[in-house]
Formats: sequence, C-alpha cells, structure tokens
Amino acid sequence: MIQIGIVGLGYWGPNWLRNFAQTDGCEVRYGCDLDAARCTKFQKQYPGITFTTKFKDLLNDPELDAVVIVTPTSSHFPLAKAALLAGKHVLVEKPMTATLKEANELVKLAKRKKLQLLVDHTFAYTEAVAKIREIIKDGKLGEPLYIDSTRINLGLIQKDTNVLWDLAIHDLTIIDAVQKLDSVVEVFACGSAFYGKQSEIGHLHLKFASGLHAHVHASWLSPVKIRQTLIGGKKAMIVYNDTEPSEKIRVYDKGIEHDTTKPDPFFPKYRSGDVLIPAIALTEALATEAAHFVDCIRGKAKPRVSGEDGKRMVEILEAADKSLKQNRILKIKQG
Amino acid sequence: MIQIGIVGLGYWGPNWLRNFAQTDGCEVRYGCDLDAARCTKFQKQYPGITFTTKFKDLLNDPELDAVVIVTPTSSHFPLAKAALLAGKHVLVEKPMTATLKEANELVKLAKRKKLQLLVDHTFAYTEAVAKIREIIKDGKLGEPLYIDSTRINLGLIQKDTNVLWDLAIHDLTIIDAVQKLDSVVEVFACGSAFYGKQSEIGHLHLKFASGLHAHVHASWLSPVKIRQTLIGGKKAMIVYNDTEPSEKIRVYDKGIEHDTTKPDPFFPKYRSGDVLIPAIALTEALATEAAHFVDCIRGKAKPRVSGEDGKRMVEILEAADKSLKQNRILKIKQG
Amino acid sequence: MIQIGIVGLGYWGPNWLRNFAQTDGCEVRYGCDLDAARCTKFQKQYPGITFTTKFKDLLNDPELDAVVIVTPTSSHFPLAKAALLAGKHVLVEKPMTATLKEANELVKLAKRKKLQLLVDHTFAYTEAVAKIREIIKDGKLGEPLYIDSTRINLGLIQKDTNVLWDLAIHDLTIIDAVQKLDSVVEVFACGSAFYGKQSEIGHLHLKFASGLHAHVHASWLSPVKIRQTLIGGKKAMIVYNDTEPSEKIRVYDKGIEHDTTKPDPFFPKYRSGDVLIPAIALTEALATEAAHFVDCIRGKAKPRVSGEDGKRMVEILEAADKSLKQNRILKIKQG
Amino acid sequence: MIQIGIVGLGYWGPNWLRNFAQTDGCEVRYGCDLDAARCTKFQKQYPGITFTTKFKDLLNDPELDAVVIVTPTSSHFPLAKAALLAGKHVLVEKPMTATLKEANELVKLAKRKKLQLLVDHTFAYTEAVAKIREIIKDGKLGEPLYIDSTRINLGLIQKDTNVLWDLAIHDLTIIDAVQKLDSVVEVFACGSAFYGKQSEIGHLHLKFASGLHAHVHASWLSPVKIRQTLIGGKKAMIVYNDTEPSEKIRVYDKGIEHDTTKPDPFFPKYRSGDVLIPAIALTEALATEAAHFVDCIRGKAKPRVSGEDGKRMVEILEAADKSLKQNRILKIKQG
Repeated sequence: MIQIGIVGLGYWGPNWLRNFAQTDGCEVRYGCDLDAARCTKFQKQYPGITFTTKFKDLLNDPELDAVVIVTPTSSHFPLAKAALLAGKHVLVEKPMTATLKEANELVKLAKRKKLQLLVDHTFAYTEAVAKIREIIKDGKLGEPLYIDSTRINLGLIQKDTNVLWDLAIHDLTIIDAVQKLDSVVEVFACGSAFYGKQSEIGHLHLKFASGLHAHVHASWLSPVKIRQTLIGGKKAMIVYNDTEPSEKIRVYDKGIEHDTTKPDPFFPKYRSGDVLIPAIALTEALATEAAHFVDCIRGKAKPRVSGEDGKRMVEILEAADKSLKQNRILKIKQG
Repeated sequence: MIQIGIVGLGYWGPNWLRNFAQTDGCEVRYGCDLDAARCTKFQKQYPGITFTTKFKDLLNDPELDAVVIVTPTSSHFPLAKAALLAGKHVLVEKPMTATLKEANELVKLAKRKKLQLLVDHTFAYTEAVAKIREIIKDGKLGEPLYIDSTRINLGLIQKDTNVLWDLAIHDLTIIDAVQKLDSVVEVFACGSAFYGKQSEIGHLHLKFASGLHAHVHASWLSPVKIRQTLIGGKKAMIVYNDTEPSEKIRVYDKGIEHDTTKPDPFFPKYRSGDVLIPAIALTEALATEAAHFVDCIRGKAKPRVSGEDGKRMVEILEAADKSLKQNRILKIKQG
Repeated sequence: MIQIGIVGLGYWGPNWLRNFAQTDGCEVRYGCDLDAARCTKFQKQYPGITFTTKFKDLLNDPELDAVVIVTPTSSHFPLAKAALLAGKHVLVEKPMTATLKEANELVKLAKRKKLQLLVDHTFAYTEAVAKIREIIKDGKLGEPLYIDSTRINLGLIQKDTNVLWDLAIHDLTIIDAVQKLDSVVEVFACGSAFYGKQSEIGHLHLKFASGLHAHVHASWLSPVKIRQTLIGGKKAMIVYNDTEPSEKIRVYDKGIEHDTTKPDPFFPKYRSGDVLIPAIALTEALATEAAHFVDCIRGKAKPRVSGEDGKRMVEILEAADKSLKQNRILKIKQG
Repeated sequence: MIQIGIVGLGYWGPNWLRNFAQTDGCEVRYGCDLDAARCTKFQKQYPGITFTTKFKDLLNDPELDAVVIVTPTSSHFPLAKAALLAGKHVLVEKPMTATLKEANELVKLAKRKKLQLLVDHTFAYTEAVAKIREIIKDGKLGEPLYIDSTRINLGLIQKDTNVLWDLAIHDLTIIDAVQKLDSVVEVFACGSAFYGKQSEIGHLHLKFASGLHAHVHASWLSPVKIRQTLIGGKKAMIVYNDTEPSEKIRVYDKGIEHDTTKPDPFFPKYRSGDVLIPAIALTEALATEAAHFVDCIRGKAKPRVSGEDGKRMVEILEAADKSLKQNRILKIKQG
C-alpha cells in the first residue's frame, strides 16, 4: 500500500483527503496543517489517519511514500524540495512554484532523486478534456486553427496573485491538450487592476511555433459566469462549455473549404453539418488524478502532468507577468 | 421636402431605399447603381423614383439635397467628395473611407462647404445602445471599469478587408457610447488568416486616456454566433446580448467595494443584487437614422455620428492594421 | 403553366402571393380581396397579376386552375365549395373549415369532382418535421412512448376562436408526423378564458388506439415564448425546439431498458449516450408547399396534407371544444 | 436544548442529520436506522450522537423532544403514530402518509396530544418560493390567472409509487404558495406507464373554487431536465426556473388590459415592460426548515407546513390516483 500524506487542509486540501481516502492501492497516513484546529476537526472525521501540525513528522517517517502539497503557492517550493530531499514522491498544487527558477530546481531534483513529481493541473484529468484529446487523436478536428478561451465571473479577488495565475492556468491546461505549450514562442498579456495591485481582468495571447494563435480572457469582475473554450480546426470546431452540467462538449461539423473548381482560388465554400454532443462520464477529476498518482509511483504510468509540464506553465505565466509590466510582446524560447 | 438620392443598390442599399421612402419630411428622388438590371428591378417597385446608372445625374440635379452612399468602401471617398463638391449633404456607409487621409479630406471639405457629413455606424442608432447611453447618463453604471465585446460566427469571409473593419467596427461603435473613442491612446491588434490574406479572426485592445481598457474579439470562423458586450462599472454591470430577440440588455446590480471597516484596506465586499432587463422598443435602427439625417439637414439636430466620428473610427482601424503588421502596440494621439 | 388565384390578401395571403410568384410551373393569375385598397397596393408590386375584389372573376375564368384560400375561417367553406363547384383545385388555409360537417362536404365534393383539395398545415412542410419523419422512418426513434408539445407566448387573443384552433393545430400537425391522427380514440381538453369568451389557455390530451398519449399546452398568456415538442421513443428521444434559429432538432440517445440479468424483472438500466443535432436546411415551408400543390395538380404527387387530413384535424378540434364545454373526456371513432 | 432523533439514514436522512447538527437551539441525540452498517458509518462521523437500530430506544428516552422521520412512505404512519403516542413532536418526510385515512389519524392524534406535526414539503422553505410569496403579498402579481408547472427529466423510476407522488408533489407545494390547496375543487390526472406498473409520466389538472386552473406535467422519461413554473397574474407574470443556479425567478411586467376607450369592449392592449430577476439568497432549504421546526417546538412559530397541509396534499394525490384509474374528473370537497 502506497502511503500518502496530505499537506494543507484549507480550501482544497480536504478534497484531496477525501479522494485519496477512497483510492485503491494507497492509504492516507498523514494529514498536515499549521492550524491545530483544522487537524482536530479532520481527526474526528478520519480517525484512522494521523493529523499533525509538523511537516517534519512526514519527512521523518520512512514508511511514507509520497506527499500531496496543497498549501499557498509561495510555500510550494520549500515544501516540495524538502519532500524530494527526504525521498518522497510529490504531487503539488498548481501553479507548481512561484518562479521559473524554483520550478527548474524541483524538476532537476526530482530527476536526480528518481522520484515522481506531478502537478495538479486539474483540467488535464477531466472527462471533457479527455474527450477533446480523443477527438483530436481520431483526426476529427483536423489541423488546429485557433483556440479562444473565456473564464470569467464575479470571483474572489486574490491579494497576492493576478487573475492569469489563478484562472487562466485552467485555460492553458485545456490549450495544452490541443497544442503542447512546449511550442509557445510569443506571449502577450494585458490587464487591469481596480481593487488590488494585481490584474483582476487579464487577456493572454500565445503564439505557437506552428503559427497557431490562442487567446485567454480571464476575469474576476464579470457579472456573468462564462467558462467556454472554442477550438477551431480544419475539419471541425469544438465548443467546450464547462458551466453546462452534462452537455459540456459540442463538435460542430462546420468549416470552410476552398472551392478549387472556381477560377478565383479565393472562393470559400461553407460546410454546416450536424452537431454532436458526445456523452461524457461524470467522474470527479481528483479521483482520476489520485489513482493516476498512485500508478505513477508504482511505475505503472507516466505522469500526465509532469514537473516539466508544471515548469512550462510557470514559464508562460512568468512571461505573461513580464509582458504585463513592460507592455510589450515577449518572445520565449521553445520548451 | 428634402430630396434624397440613394447610391448603391446591392445588399444594404435597398434597406436605405425602403427606410427613406417611409421617412417623413423627405422624398427619395433617385436610386443609382452601375448595374442597370438592379435599376430596372427597383423601378417597378418604386415607380415614383428615378433610377439611373449615372451618378452624375444626381450631382447635376440642383433639386437634390443629399446623397446616401452605400457602395463598396474603396468608392466612398471619390463619391462622397464629388457629392460634397456638388453641394450635397452626405450620409456614407461604414467605414467612412478606406484611409485616414481620405477621411481627413472629407471632413475638411464638408466643413468648408457647410454641409452635413454623417456616417452609418448603425449600432449608434439602435434602441439597445440608446438604453445603454441612458443608463450611463443616469449615473447607474458608475465609472466604467472595462468593456469586452465578442462578435463571432461562421461569417462571410471578405476578400479585401479584415474582420476588424467588417465586424469589430460595430463593437467600437458600442464602446464609443460608453467612452468616446476620441480618448483612445493605445491600440494593439492581433489576428490570423487561414483562407484569404486578411485576418479572419482578430483581437483588438484599446487603452483610453482614463486608463480604461477595452477588448474586442471578432471572428468569421466561429461555429457559434455570439454578439455580446460586457460593460463593467463601479456601480453596476451591463451585459448586452444582441442575439437575444428582445431581452438584449441586462443590468446587474453587482460589484465589489472596499470594506473600510476592516483594518486591512484590501478586503473586498461583494454586492450581488437584482438583475434588470429593461424593455426596449423594437424599432429598426435605419428608420431612426434616416429621420435623424433629415433633421440634421434641416438644422434641427446635430449628427449623432459625424464625419469626425467616422474619421476617428478609420484612424483606429488603420492603427489596428499597422499593429497587426508590425506585431507591436501602437500609440495614437488623442482625438 | 398552372394558373393560380390567391384569395385573401390580409396578414398571411401576401406570403402565398410571394411564394407562388416564385414557384416554377405555375403563374399567379389573380389576387383577390374584398378590400380594394389592398388590391391597388399589390397591383403596383405585381403588375403582371390581375387584382380584383370579385371572387366571381376567378370562378368564371376557365383558364384558372386553382385557388388558394387565405381568408377568415368562417369563409373557408363557402369559398372552397364554390371553387370546387367551378372546377378549381383548392388549397385552403388551416383550419380547413369551422365545422366537421363542412369539412365532410368539401372532401366529398372534391372527390366527386376529382379535384385536389389540400389544407395548409404549414408545419407538415417544414424541414424540421421532415427530419423527424426521417428519423422515425429509419427506425431510430423506436416505438413512440409519448409526445408533449408546448406552444405559448404573449400572443394575439383571437375574438372568435380559442387558442387550440389557433395554436395547438400546429402541435397536432407535428404529432401527426409521429402517429397519424386517424387513430385518436379519446380527447380531453380544458382551458381558461379571462379577456374574451374563448379559452386563451388550453390543454389538450389525446389518446391513440395504440395507447400512446399526447399532450399539448397552448397559451396566449405566457410571458415567455416556448415552442417545444418532446417525442419519447423506446430507442431515442427527440426535442424539437422551434424557437432555435437553426439547431431545432436534438436526438438524444437516451432511454431505459429492463435489465434481464437481474432476478427482479423491474430493474431499469439507464442509457445516456450522445446527443445529435442534425443539420436542417433553412428553406421556407410555404415554398415547399407551393411547389407541392402544383405537383399535386399535375398528378405528380399525392397531397401531403389532404382534405381527409384537414377533416380529421377539424374533427379533433371540434371534439376538444365539446370536451371543454362538457368538462369530460370524449371518445371519438377511429378515422 | 431541544433533543432531536433522526429516523432513517438512507438517501435523504443524512442531509437532515447534517442540518440539525448545525442548527442552534437543538442537539441531535439519536440517529436511527434498521441497517446497523449505516449506524456504524455515521457513528464515526458524529461521535457525540447515539446511533441505534431500535426505534424504541428513541420512544423510551424521556429526554428526547422530537423525531424526524425520513423512511419509506409506507412506514411514515406507524412511526409517526408511535412517536406522537410517546409524546414526541414529529417532522415527517413528504408525502406525509400513504393514505388520506392515515393522514387524518395523525392530524387528530397530534392535536389531541398537543404536539407539533410538520411535513417536509421542502420547496415551501426555499428562498425562491419565499420570494414568490413576497411578490404576491406586495400585490405585484395581481389576481392569479393560471399556474403551469413542469418537472421532468430522465429520473429514477420508483417501483411502488407514481411520478405524481414523487415529483408533482413539489409543484403542488409551489402552487400552494400562490393559491392554498384548501380550495381545490376538481382534480383530473392522466398518465402512462411503460416500464413498471405506476405512471412514469403524469399530468395533473387542478381547478380551484376561484376558477383558477393549475396544471402540472411530471415525468421520469424526458431526455431534458426542466423544472419550470409559470405563474400568470393580472399585473405581472412570474417564471420560476429551478434549474438556474442563481437567477431562479423572473418577474415580467407583462399583461393584457381591456382598452376601455374603444367602442368594442374586447380590444386588448398588450403591456410589455421590464423584466426583474430579484436577488435570492442561496441558503439550503433544510437549514431553514430545521430551525423552523425547533422554533415551532418552542412555541415561537406556527408550522409553515402543518399536518393539515400534509393531509391536504395526500388527499389531492389520492384523488389524482383515483382519477387516473377511473379516467374521469374528480370533484373533491373544499379543505
């Protein structure tokens, strides 16, 4: 049985607690939070788990195989580093680290120690994104033409981070399923801050080596909640509407083709066929992810979101910050 | 009775013909199109109007007061110039001209000749935009925080112009109702072309002197039709959904306020009150616009969309083109 | 060339005028309306057609092949009867007549005179209903389980007829495409009248010989416009939403099956597969119908909606009236 | 502190457990279920509560004030009767009992024993229904004209009860907020059963003494989930869409008035004003209900849904069953 420790029992940590507790092949051995009251509260609910305020207890336990780090971003690096040094596999909340430098160090360390390092880009584990991957793999989308993603609502303004790090990271995860973020070559970001010092509204434009252009609109200041990604391909177009309870993905047999029978090469023919809403299993992404982490530790699977993936995400978000501050387009080297 | 001539009877011209024919205080004296067959066709429907293939007939008729130019963009300038020189008032289709230089010349000429020069930015005459103006005038929106507008569908790709000149011009008209385009200081545009040489998908970012940021997403390559503008203000937020048949405007009593009772000045309070969908008259914008043009000619009204407004629009779109080509942010001087 | 006369140029007649004028193989020879002003107005628009206030002119013209009757319901019978007696084919607006007795007489007369008698149940000619017929014919729906149709809005209250004759007749046309109205054996209707003397809200329940149950909710007093028909079958379910501009039909691969592997025979298994929105051509139903009428006259087609069909519709609506007045379920004999 | 026992820990009981555990002024003293495994499971989660498989333990404890009965319908009567006889206040799940006779007996018994008897008609405690009551109380709806309610989805077919007892009971609760079910004078129900022996689709028509007509469409066999109630009044119309996450209620300033200036008294004027979506607090109905039950026990409040209300509901559902079986309209005496 793989022994797991959950570090950070605030807003998101309890979801990990519940999911790992129900995952086959592993046991939650520790819950850990600096706040003793939280520990006491969860101790009642999970009498078989040891709750502690000391992270060291986890590091020092030779029986513990892995830690899941669900703490504020600034602490991801020191906690993950300590865990890796202590020989523990790590699953860390998104974003992996606060800086690219830190991300780099973690990736190298995990490699050297031959330990698994995974990052919780949750959307990579949703059935909706799995369906998008399948459609693309089956060749039904054709060459991708554009990706346009909107994630806006009247959301909780974060004090220490901007809306791109908080929300656009999900859109970037979806984009990565269409075109690997490895090949991003240009980043432009702009935004506005009204209540705090960090952008509460942000736009992010990515250019890929292939010429593909992706755009993300993220906002904490919208009266309406929209979570929609448009993916245009040569053969079909996909609309992924995440606010729909079940009909999340629509595949439009729509597109434009050159009419080669016409003398003028520019004479587009419009195709407007059926729309398909594929059935999607309603499983919880965290359950899939917990099982996957266990499989990775056992050597049965390769990380769907590796440390390298987490690092690339941080690199792009860091570039976005720089673009925002310098009000210019930023080139970034291919991953 | 003001005597009107309609020039260009292709796709949009007949709408002007029909609307001016029903407008009080004026008479349609001429219909004009290079295509004789079109003239014959409309002659049957409007036996009281003179249809001609010769624009000169209009210029030479001293009884004619005004011309409405509904021809391809490249011909707007020569036709409008000739009309003004012949002493006719002019209402010209959007965009006013193909270049800023031309726009400048028309504005100066109209001023010198003391003639009315109006531009058909249709949305300026819709009841929905009138309602937005009213909400703002009544102080219900508060200081504008952002404007974000989306105008996408599987649309007719234009051969000679990009999607910003074709579609985003409508969003810019709506934006102008919130914050005059006069005070735009920065323009950034990016886009993609797949089928022709001009961008079929475009994003336009505007920064205003006040710091306000506006964004437009325009596309001919979307599987779904979206025509939605979000306007965020300090006191309320507006969603204008133009694909709704009647409930086009929603006013959200939503927002964020600093909680000054807290020690930490950054402690936002969220307000989430009622939503109001105001009743909007379902009148045709062109009818309002036709009557307004007649009023302007008679000196009873000032142009809602003047030559200056048309020129500013062309200036911004020209800057967008430049930004697109040079892949950089463009400063433009205040209007 | 089949020679056509259009009788009644009020609200709906001009649509027939326009559609027959564009139909191959026929010519509109007459337009007819008691109101001379209407005749004058349309004369200008259609100079090649003879407009007259005298219905007799049509009857007396031996060159005229057929009349299209688009007058108030109470006049359908005398006009259609006179036309048939004069040897003209007839296409009559829905409902065919005001009473079953009249409908009966027309059907017999047409048969005796060997003339075509068609009724304008418009929905029978829509692409959406054609698609529903196709799905059923292909066996994709399976045995029909239920039909439930809603047609409500804030509509024009009719003075002389109730909402079932005005609106539910469309739902009945859609129902007829799933299960022929011939086999209706029971009718129950209830309703309410607030402003006039006729029901402004109505519910209609039909039982078919097969046991199938259909329900229609029609209302002129709803704040929202709903035009939706649910069709449940053993193999699939269809939702036909007529207020959607293009995505009108959805086919749900959903259903329930007995799990025969379980000891208890009552153990339903739920199937929830893909949803398909088939592409539907956006043609005008009246254009299809006009061409079809001409084909029927030429002996190239059999009426999609015959006098018999029109008569059955009147029979059901008459039964509904009786059920409403007597507040009881009515048996009707099979057609 | 009021001492509460929860009886039945299957699907719905745990929600009561959780809510009463968080309600001020009371303590959950017992959890009770015939299934020992369930007791063990919840014992871990709620160490301070006594879990038992013996209902008698609750009856015999003189400290226990009240029981909440969340068991299958057939057991409501014996359990509630025993509890009342033992001097305990009772909150029983809907429907109160399986028969009117049983309901009658419970109401009499509670009265004789001077104990509170409440029924969980959950919708009576939602903020949405509270808002509807407020709108009506403020006179904004005007005289009610109609109520039409739809509650359909692909739902779990119940083996021992029909869809009216399972789903329409919620619509009836909403209807009761507009017009007390006391004054229902006629009931008509029809339905269809395909998989089991009980109607899986049902329609229920109610006539009230005032002439008001209400209709409910309930189904377990719909491909789409609709939970919508239309309430038409002389002054306004309400649409309550319960599938909306937050914008559940819309108040339409729409209606029809007689134009008394016209010679013909039947000349309706249509009014189509603003639509208001009032803000609704997102509280859990069970939390409100738990606190209300405690208040009723303490004599601080009168039951919002009393035994009398529960009895009336059973009476109407029993009449619906009879109407279904006998295929006729049923008169019922006023409550």
